[in-house]
Amino acid sequence: MLSNIRVVLINTFHPGNIGAAARAMKNMGLNNLYLVEPREFPSPEADSRAAGAKDLLDNAVIVSSLEEAISDCQLVIGTSARTKRTFDLPLLNARKGAERIVAESEQGNVALVFGRETMGLHNDELQQCNVHIYIPANPEYPVLNVSQAIQLLCYEVYVATEEKTYTPIEEEYPRQKEMTLFYSHLEKVLRTTEFIIPQHEGKVLDKLRRFFNRSRPERTELNMLRGILTSIEETVERLKK
Amino acid sequence: MLSNIRVVLINTFHPGNIGAAARAMKNMGLNNLYLVEPREFPSPEADSRAAGAKDLLDNAVIVSSLEEAISDCQLVIGTSARTKRTFDLPLLNARKGAERIVAESEQGNVALVFGRETMGLHNDELQQCNVHIYIPANPEYPVLNVSQAIQLLCYEVYVATEEKTYTPIEEEYPRQKEMTLFYSHLEKVLRTTEFIIPQHEGKVLDKLRRFFNRSRPERTELNMLRGILTSIEETVERLKK
Repeated sequence: MLSNIRVVLINTFHPGNIGAAARAMKNMGLNNLYLVEPREFPSPEADSRAAGAKDLLDNAVIVSSLEEAISDCQLVIGTSARTKRTFDLPLLNARKGAERIVAESEQGNVALVFGRETMGLHNDELQQCNVHIYIPANPEYPVLNVSQAIQLLCYEVYVATEEKTYTPIEEEYPRQKEMTLFYSHLEKVLRTTEFIIPQHEGKVLDKLRRFFNRSRPERTELNMLRGILTSIEETVERLKK
Repeated sequence: MLSNIRVVLINTFHPGNIGAAARAMKNMGLNNLYLVEPREFPSPEADSRAAGAKDLLDNAVIVSSLEEAISDCQLVIGTSARTKRTFDLPLLNARKGAERIVAESEQGNVALVFGRETMGLHNDELQQCNVHIYIPANPEYPVLNVSQAIQLLCYEVYVATEEKTYTPIEEEYPRQKEMTLFYSHLEKVLRTTEFIIPQHEGKVLDKLRRFFNRSRPERTELNMLRGILTSIEETVERLKK
């Protein structure tokens, strides 16, 4: 469902690219634009490049962090010019990725996240994604302008919707904010069991977050995991008495 | 063969779009840019938007007519936001069109023609094309920025090359300039036979050109047609004696 799909732009430098992105989205039937700390917005340059898609700019949601932009999403897609796996996330090309986006958008919200003009997504942002998408390109000059990358992905999404090339998803996935609650719960329990020790925190939580983002527990599985955490807490409480 | 494919831009108004087109092409492994009477070129704005594809601008071929840009091409593709048939040319979507482009580029030169920012291709330009391509898009707002349209088609061409989704073409097609010679020959013969009469020229030649562009005679068929024209001339000569 195109209305469940949003495009998230992080720290866009040139306002013209925001305008071009809005037009590219509307050309492909997408309407939900989220801007994480744009350098300059609103802007006449953005309006001009948006042409007939000014309404998307007027309705754009401005937020201060990626987390805020994706908290009600069940699938978060990071786009990247890198064609090698990073953080062991599943890596799909634009076409396969679009089929996935469209399939999951039948169930809930999906975010397509694009990074800065100069350097794409930071590592901590990539870690908040469930899947990476790359655009097949000339290996000698693979980095597209951000608005062109948006155009391509929105086009693939539109074509996948039109041609129904996707396979419906059976599983139900939790929202990102439920995952965030799970991570807090997990951290609390791991401190209780002293798996995490204040003086030697290491990167345990980062590694666990990476693992769970990648493995994407379904909703019933997440409930089970939460239940296990609770049972550990209750056992500890009981033994303390 | 990507090196046999060229992008032809007609009367581009914003030099930034020429730069963006060059980058989009190079991102997808295409290098041959033809500019038909650009309003402003070279231009700093074009250089800036081209980023790492400045070499394509330096090597761009500037010509004064579409005819000149396509004379050595065997297949000429007109791009258009119209999704209905115009002039009865075969109409393909971007994906199917790209497969065709890649298949024929194994044999000879192929031109992908893009019109003005404001109004696309004129009718007389569309008539010089063998096939129309359209980009599937939101019917309520289907007109893409020209550099975005170029990005999408070059991407589809790149993917078709990579995935070899095309079927090799068996037929050999004539170049546009051979077609031009044929049309001159045809006109000469039709004047001889008084099918075309100076005072009542009508649109006979336009209609015939449209017909032959659409039906795309193969090289052997064109030779045969030329032979028929010659036989008519010889017969007339013989009878005159």
